[in-house]
Amino acid sequence: MALIVQKYGGTSVKDLDRIRNVADRIKATCAEGHHVVVVVSARGGVTNRLVADAKALHPHPDDREMDMLLSIGEQETIALTTIALHSIGQPAVSRTGGQAGILTDNVHTKARLIDIKGGDIAEQLEQGKVVIVAGFQGVNLDGQITTLGRGGSDLSAIALAAALKADVCQIFTDVDGVFTADPRVVPAASKIPELAYEEMLELASLGSKVMQSRAVEFANKHNVPFEVRNSYNNNPGTMVKAETTLEDVVVRGVACDKNQTKVVVSELPDQPGAAARLFQTLADAKVNVDMIVQNIGRDGVANLTFTVPSDETFKAEAAIKACLAELGRGKLDLAETMAKVSVVGIGMRSHSGVAATMFTALASNGINIQLISTSEIKISVAVDLDKADEAVRVIHNAFDLDKE
Amino acid sequence: MALIVQKYGGTSVKDLDRIRNVADRIKATCAEGHHVVVVVSARGGVTNRLVADAKALHPHPDDREMDMLLSIGEQETIALTTIALHSIGQPAVSRTGGQAGILTDNVHTKARLIDIKGGDIAEQLEQGKVVIVAGFQGVNLDGQITTLGRGGSDLSAIALAAALKADVCQIFTDVDGVFTADPRVVPAASKIPELAYEEMLELASLGSKVMQSRAVEFANKHNVPFEVRNSYNNNPGTMVKAETTLEDVVVRGVACDKNQTKVVVSELPDQPGAAARLFQTLADAKVNVDMIVQNIGRDGVANLTFTVPSDETFKAEAAIKACLAELGRGKLDLAETMAKVSVVGIGMRSHSGVAATMFTALASNGINIQLISTSEIKISVAVDLDKADEAVRVIHNAFDLDKE
Repeated sequence: MALIVQKYGGTSVKDLDRIRNVADRIKATCAEGHHVVVVVSARGGVTNRLVADAKALHPHPDDREMDMLLSIGEQETIALTTIALHSIGQPAVSRTGGQAGILTDNVHTKARLIDIKGGDIAEQLEQGKVVIVAGFQGVNLDGQITTLGRGGSDLSAIALAAALKADVCQIFTDVDGVFTADPRVVPAASKIPELAYEEMLELASLGSKVMQSRAVEFANKHNVPFEVRNSYNNNPGTMVKAETTLEDVVVRGVACDKNQTKVVVSELPDQPGAAARLFQTLADAKVNVDMIVQNIGRDGVANLTFTVPSDETFKAEAAIKACLAELGRGKLDLAETMAKVSVVGIGMRSHSGVAATMFTALASNGINIQLISTSEIKISVAVDLDKADEAVRVIHNAFDLDKE
Repeated sequence: MALIVQKYGGTSVKDLDRIRNVADRIKATCAEGHHVVVVVSARGGVTNRLVADAKALHPHPDDREMDMLLSIGEQETIALTTIALHSIGQPAVSRTGGQAGILTDNVHTKARLIDIKGGDIAEQLEQGKVVIVAGFQGVNLDGQITTLGRGGSDLSAIALAAALKADVCQIFTDVDGVFTADPRVVPAASKIPELAYEEMLELASLGSKVMQSRAVEFANKHNVPFEVRNSYNNNPGTMVKAETTLEDVVVRGVACDKNQTKVVVSELPDQPGAAARLFQTLADAKVNVDMIVQNIGRDGVANLTFTVPSDETFKAEAAIKACLAELGRGKLDLAETMAKVSVVGIGMRSHSGVAATMFTALASNGINIQLISTSEIKISVAVDLDKADEAVRVIHNAFDLDKE
């Protein structure tokens, strides 16, 4: 007998038929002799509707009241899922985040976990019940309802699995797992059976953006193996754990982020710390900077090129202009949106030639590389947006990832 | 400065415009220099939708899970109302039933109040905030969410007013107050400015069935004066308190209940306790019996006539048949639905002739009285359903209640 934590996202519980389907899956898992704890999200669309109501009343609704409001979405799902389980004869009981002892700090709408007490979950499991826990939500030490921010239900599931010492955590979503590339772009992409946590972190944006990185980071830190599975079928998913047991491959998959804006800051004054000051300004404005390249021009002035997420372009522009005004020099160019295409694989650590293979594939297809950045297990290049899909396909093929 | 508890029902908060209207009213009350605690119901229609979802999944959903589910309705309203108050610059904070320290027993879906701790409401008021409390819900001593059953939000408001020693409790609804008769039946009916608790209990079914008797009973027991008002206008409402200060009138109003079924049990065996046994059976089946008349027939057998609420007819029939089978004798007739028309007034205690006036009015209009029952402050008669409205009108006129 194993203890299994299952998480079902909003699309998996969006209507009563889907909730019945989830109940059937849970019962089937119990019938195999396992203890089951289930974490559910709000029904698809519910959170958006609540946010729209709040924003119709106030352009910037209070964070604490938003948590009070949004937490009802998951509370609805836990009750309905439990009732659906009862209707097929499966003993079950629901628990809010607070009742499951999910303790957080006081930062409403993006609270951080402090502790997972578990409440009486162990006792309920011993009595033969499935325990259905509201994801995304917790309480602070004052008993106020908090929420964990985007991807919070994944985090709830992984953290509960860690606290309960579950044997496995299953993250049910609407795709079969993590793919070697987005199957809509690369028809030859295939599901990856196993991934290391670090690879999952880098690939998180692949395919249907299966998971937020926060939950994966928590799993990595606390060593919680988890499986990404499809709630619409019974296919095996992608197992994510500390070390994969499959034959080592150099590149596990190809990721593509089409929401990067290229920023060029030229003619920065030739003085120590000018670049540092610019990046500090951007950091203070909470802009995520990536793919930094610096050139020193002939006349001694510095040119900086980097990318920022497209939806942070406005924030970045304001911050940079303020900084350049202070420095008394420098010129800002915001170029068009770029695509960042990356290859990811833990095997890169011990293999050379990955960059060469990647760049050759792109060059021989006439795709120009504008920027490059690398980490131990990832190489990223910025390419023109209209070349992005082709870049992903040729790289996918160059590393022999195309399925037969 | 007074402490005022206001309660807004589901129709008063049914959409965002109505919630904005409620926020304006609350702010206006604060602007008069008062501390304000507000109890809100679920938005009109929300509870019915949740019940329908639960019943679609299970014909008899678990009571505990129903409380988990239904309590989100009020939680939505407290958050939205608080956000609406913020948008007009009124400091406010929301509290669930549990956070407001509304403690109940363990009887899910119809819990009884044990204690009202109030949580940190007093502190929040001192800080200049309005406190918006979820009606209808509480927690038991294990921290499980419970609900108070029908009319629960009225009870929450009255009980909070008692616990906080509020100066007044205002029950906002969609009618102007309690009327001398249902204005849809009697155009000449008028709003009653003041009522004693006992009269309110008897008249609770008048007009739009403004309040459930449970909340009125609590107000009577704990002496909590309250006012029934219309959230759609600024008219003064009906003040309900221990003793009215207005000139004493004999009859305060005329009530009509069109959902009574006449039951005739004839040829009961002439043995001691046969009637007692019949009524005990009905009590065990939780059937509310009213207007009992017993005749002893010529041959010594007993005949019993009484009324039961029409929606309990099926339960009553089954219980009576079982009892008659045990007694080995007796015959059951279920007659058609009747109307119970009542006159109510605390002044009856010291006035004679009320019955005479009532019966004369009915007789002179050719309306036949089928059954009669009386209490210290009420006289009820059962009449044919198609004569009910006319009966109300002639009685209303006979006691000089028609407004000028």
